[in-house]
Amino acid sequence: MEKYQSVSFANPSALYKEALVNKEAVRESREKIAEVLNCRKEEVVFTSGGTEGNNLALLGVFEAHKNKDFTPHFITTNVEHPSILEVFKEIERRGGEVTYLTVNEAGLISSKNVLASIKTNTVLVSVMYANNEIGSIEPIREIGKVIKDWRQKNQTELPYFHTDACQAVLYLTIDVLKLGVDLLTLDGIKIYGPKGVGLLCVKNNVKISPYLFGGGQEKGLRSGTENVPAIVGLAFAIEKADSLRDSETFRLTQIRDYGIESILKSFPNSTLNGEKENRLPNNINICFTRLDSEFAVISLDVLGISASYSSSCRTLKDDSSSYVVGNLGKRDCALSSLRFTLGRETKKADIESLVEALKQVIK
Amino acid sequence: MEKYQSVSFANPSALYKEALVNKEAVRESREKIAEVLNCRKEEVVFTSGGTEGNNLALLGVFEAHKNKDFTPHFITTNVEHPSILEVFKEIERRGGEVTYLTVNEAGLISSKNVLASIKTNTVLVSVMYANNEIGSIEPIREIGKVIKDWRQKNQTELPYFHTDACQAVLYLTIDVLKLGVDLLTLDGIKIYGPKGVGLLCVKNNVKISPYLFGGGQEKGLRSGTENVPAIVGLAFAIEKADSLRDSETFRLTQIRDYGIESILKSFPNSTLNGEKENRLPNNINICFTRLDSEFAVISLDVLGISASYSSSCRTLKDDSSSYVVGNLGKRDCALSSLRFTLGRETKKADIESLVEALKQVIK
Repeated sequence: MEKYQSVSFANPSALYKEALVNKEAVRESREKIAEVLNCRKEEVVFTSGGTEGNNLALLGVFEAHKNKDFTPHFITTNVEHPSILEVFKEIERRGGEVTYLTVNEAGLISSKNVLASIKTNTVLVSVMYANNEIGSIEPIREIGKVIKDWRQKNQTELPYFHTDACQAVLYLTIDVLKLGVDLLTLDGIKIYGPKGVGLLCVKNNVKISPYLFGGGQEKGLRSGTENVPAIVGLAFAIEKADSLRDSETFRLTQIRDYGIESILKSFPNSTLNGEKENRLPNNINICFTRLDSEFAVISLDVLGISASYSSSCRTLKDDSSSYVVGNLGKRDCALSSLRFTLGRETKKADIESLVEALKQVIK
Repeated sequence: MEKYQSVSFANPSALYKEALVNKEAVRESREKIAEVLNCRKEEVVFTSGGTEGNNLALLGVFEAHKNKDFTPHFITTNVEHPSILEVFKEIERRGGEVTYLTVNEAGLISSKNVLASIKTNTVLVSVMYANNEIGSIEPIREIGKVIKDWRQKNQTELPYFHTDACQAVLYLTIDVLKLGVDLLTLDGIKIYGPKGVGLLCVKNNVKISPYLFGGGQEKGLRSGTENVPAIVGLAFAIEKADSLRDSETFRLTQIRDYGIESILKSFPNSTLNGEKENRLPNNINICFTRLDSEFAVISLDVLGISASYSSSCRTLKDDSSSYVVGNLGKRDCALSSLRFTLGRETKKADIESLVEALKQVIK
């Protein structure tokens, strides 16, 4: 990244030599990423992050399909990230129609429910790959298959299938052909990559409108001078995630399960939010009956443990409860749950420190 | 910036200690910038760059005001950057109305023409502070005064006044009170700052809708995890631009004028695009009769000189002519002009190398 930060001010869309170096770096990064995604390189659209990718996917498909005689319909879940749910609120304000599927106790939706909700005006199904709060992994391949079958049977290109894969890429395949998705969102910040960059994979068949207008970069879908160092860093992070995927999944699954067992054993009134199966290897989310989770996060911080309650993106609002946990049918747990995120630096010994700290905070 | 790049993955909206360090850095950066802009700190909205700032300003004001019984009207110029002109095309597609004021030979509009164009449904006037191609400095304070008078006379808050100041901030004041603007766009990349970050100053009185939906960051106007290292870098770049402004303006004006004189003297068939007065100190833009500017840019590059024809953001399109130069009433020059941008590294001796190189390319 540093190299391209210092080939400083050459606009990659300009003609002179420094600009060509930048252009080449963007082209190479796009190619590397396309290989991991198993898509065409022109299907990779660089964005400023996951929120922007999700906005472009949903609003772009909405704006491309709405007209006086057609109300686009969308299907999604009630546990999506705010950068999906808030966009759907805006789509409803603009006259679109949205079906919110409910999840079961494990945080999962069923492909059967998706199929039952598809209507002739459904333009897009958007289901997150893995949940940011409870780590539940949705049955993306199954849903992709169900949608493909419906399209074939009805001889139509719609609905498209979008997945927000921001939380999944470190541990699960993001091969868009295998998954059967038409649009897929990634964020640099969630994969040890640079901040302020992400991408939306948009298959060539997708009819989509831009939402940022200007110089016409990124096939006209995302105008704005390309952030070359960040794009180079993103490609590096995605390649690294791809190569470490299997070993990190194996390693962290063991640490995670050890952590869950240790906590449940130490605190008889605690329960796991979500289930062990179909769960991201880096996610532990526990409900401690009647705990004030906001207070617990602050107390744990003093002891050197970074925990979260609900989603960081929700703590900006007055409401500090977790709608995700609440939607599992565990209303009381919405205000009493703690989330711990494991990563490349996490070792088994950290679990023991975590349990010790929890014992001090939760009496 | 490095410090905050390595406080890596703490979401500044979260609660734990690393997150609070990030939050504090964003708060401090916002305060520093507000001081230079002479605005309130909550009026600084961080964006991913200039294109996004311009999109938010125009589409945000449009969406906040349009309704079934009201068609918002906008006033702008025909030499704006594509990230303004393309957004206005989209606003027209969505049912808005836009007046494009023409510039005189020097690239300037008059405040009188702005006043004459204001209608009862005018919601926003958007005029660039300084042109990216020919460096012409528009009479922003005069326009600001004219708009303020109109609002007072008509007892209304509208129209708002927006300026795209991306090109101006290194050499001209960006005190929004002195300028009389309600919205002002800045971009990190144009001021020796980081890529992928910028800001829109939005005065508290402005009624504006978000265009990115999600976690509700930046007063809900720009959702998405804050890019902390980039924001810290942007604040540093703006402070540095502010402290170097007077000395760099003085130094570069002399080099620029020496350059313009040297070129005009060496090439009898050349003319200056725009005028010497009301021109950015870093901009030289010359029309060489019947020159193929695309070919000249490539030839100069071989000799170590980075030049541009038209705007970089336009070279993505098939049309390689400059609409800005064309709109000065110099149609023949649209395909025969070269632009040279001076900067902190530029010395007087560079002008001599430039003239030598030009002599080799233009026979």
